[in-house]
Amino acid sequence: MKNIVFSKFGDPKEVLSLQESGSFPMPEGTARVDVLCAPVNPSDIATIEGRYGDLPDPPATPGLEGIGRVREVNGTGIDVGSLVLLPGGGTWATEMVRNIEELVPLPHADVDQLSMLTINPATAYLLLRDYVELKPGDWVIQSAANSAVGQYVIQLGKARGIKVACVVRSEAAKAKLLADGADAVFLDGPDLIEHVQAAIDNKMRLALDAVAGETFGRLAETLEYSGTLVLFGGLSGHPAQIDDGLIIFNNVQIKGFWLLPWIQSASTEEKAEVYWALTQEVIAGRLHADVAAHYSLDQFTDAMRAYETPGRNGKILFAPNGI
Amino acid sequence: MKNIVFSKFGDPKEVLSLQESGSFPMPEGTARVDVLCAPVNPSDIATIEGRYGDLPDPPATPGLEGIGRVREVNGTGIDVGSLVLLPGGGTWATEMVRNIEELVPLPHADVDQLSMLTINPATAYLLLRDYVELKPGDWVIQSAANSAVGQYVIQLGKARGIKVACVVRSEAAKAKLLADGADAVFLDGPDLIEHVQAAIDNKMRLALDAVAGETFGRLAETLEYSGTLVLFGGLSGHPAQIDDGLIIFNNVQIKGFWLLPWIQSASTEEKAEVYWALTQEVIAGRLHADVAAHYSLDQFTDAMRAYETPGRNGKILFAPNGI
Repeated sequence: MKNIVFSKFGDPKEVLSLQESGSFPMPEGTARVDVLCAPVNPSDIATIEGRYGDLPDPPATPGLEGIGRVREVNGTGIDVGSLVLLPGGGTWATEMVRNIEELVPLPHADVDQLSMLTINPATAYLLLRDYVELKPGDWVIQSAANSAVGQYVIQLGKARGIKVACVVRSEAAKAKLLADGADAVFLDGPDLIEHVQAAIDNKMRLALDAVAGETFGRLAETLEYSGTLVLFGGLSGHPAQIDDGLIIFNNVQIKGFWLLPWIQSASTEEKAEVYWALTQEVIAGRLHADVAAHYSLDQFTDAMRAYETPGRNGKILFAPNGI
Repeated sequence: MKNIVFSKFGDPKEVLSLQESGSFPMPEGTARVDVLCAPVNPSDIATIEGRYGDLPDPPATPGLEGIGRVREVNGTGIDVGSLVLLPGGGTWATEMVRNIEELVPLPHADVDQLSMLTINPATAYLLLRDYVELKPGDWVIQSAANSAVGQYVIQLGKARGIKVACVVRSEAAKAKLLADGADAVFLDGPDLIEHVQAAIDNKMRLALDAVAGETFGRLAETLEYSGTLVLFGGLSGHPAQIDDGLIIFNNVQIKGFWLLPWIQSASTEEKAEVYWALTQEVIAGRLHADVAAHYSLDQFTDAMRAYETPGRNGKILFAPNGI
């Protein structure tokens, strides 16, 4: 088997290597799964760089999600040949051995799309479900709208009749997002609030921010009184900034969202419900993220470079057992 | 009668003037009150400058709190000679005419201290009551600790057995706060968290910030997981800044506090309960703010200069009818 390993925290282009070894042993109650597809997510990069909220001790194999096919079973509860959602931690490998109950069987559908289901679609789903009771016609605004989560928020919002205003950093991204179903798209900048007010009569009920920095406070300016601002990423690399008056006088409700505690604490039923709903959306063709390219594990350096390409459109996926 | 007036929003040293006129008429149900004492608060200055959350239309008389003695009554419900807490809006005057039910009768006690009861002690009381259920021995950290609210937080915390860590900007303020009963005092700066961790074994359960800027995020670093950070002022003049990881991974609960909605929406019983409790603390000598100096209304320019003096220790008070 092969897996990608980082021996210490640092720049992915420097600390990653490909390791080849014998297959993992298979204790009672486990299954061996061939990894079909595993995406490169911002949280993977943050893990390798050592700046994520939950870090393994190096040496470790990155990869917080992916999809695989069961090759061998030592126990009961899953069939050889089943398509399964993989648990986090180590999906950048040709195979994984995991406890059978950690593997979530999925109906057969687009393998690329299913491989990306655990993190970003669940994030978008919970962001739209857990903070504000949204009715059809209500407005939501989001930064980093051309990210994977951003695309899913548009798609899931559309399915529920929720209006989604998108904030991006480039003109190029605007046209694409409108074509993808965004209800309005704005360029990020100090005058964001003027542009939003000129284009949309309603105030935002919910703002979703993965950027932090000044964008955090700009989104807050678009909110109704007591509106909710959820921070779930810090792509700008700058501290979140917000005018004190928005918190004190406009009663902006600031919340943080992190998927990991939900994955760790939600019941099996709760998770099954969320992933079942998302799988149905994939099967119906309503939930979809763009894929930029597939890479074998050997091509990890190319994959990291591709991940960092400015203006990249779509996810970088590892296909450890071929496409 | 005389009152201070601002004809437009701007620098208090430029837009204030003293106005002299006949007495206000006294409709049925009102009382005429001689203003004994009215403090200069940051919220008064923010109002005059036009950057407060709730603004009157100029020309208007500043003064959001104060104490007076009833001189004349047209109705029932209050006695001539009563000491009363004045409602906000216009206390920088020799007299006010107000509806009788807006006047809260107080037992006789230190007039200076009672004149400052409405805003800062109530703020400190509600900050310690409404966000985290604090037990004796729990730690709270606060910025602007040598402000009036800061002093009241120390005093009310002490009465409840709560430990109060204080953050200030000057060495000079440290000794005074320790003498006043602070349990620990730290200089604000990028290394605040190291100093707090070196001195205190416990993490903070509640952080109270009136400064915003970088101080906001520094206080957040001292909090326990899911600890609460309440912003109630922006003395630094800079946007509140906080590392995104503290919100996302450490689940910091960010809240805003503004006294005005509480004053406007709390029931008479609720307010009576809070102000009764605070008055008892004044009578017992446990609640006390330092007074820097008293000024007549004619001396308003001197009063504004004194307010702005760096390192000023204590409140500036107007005594419109003499000390």
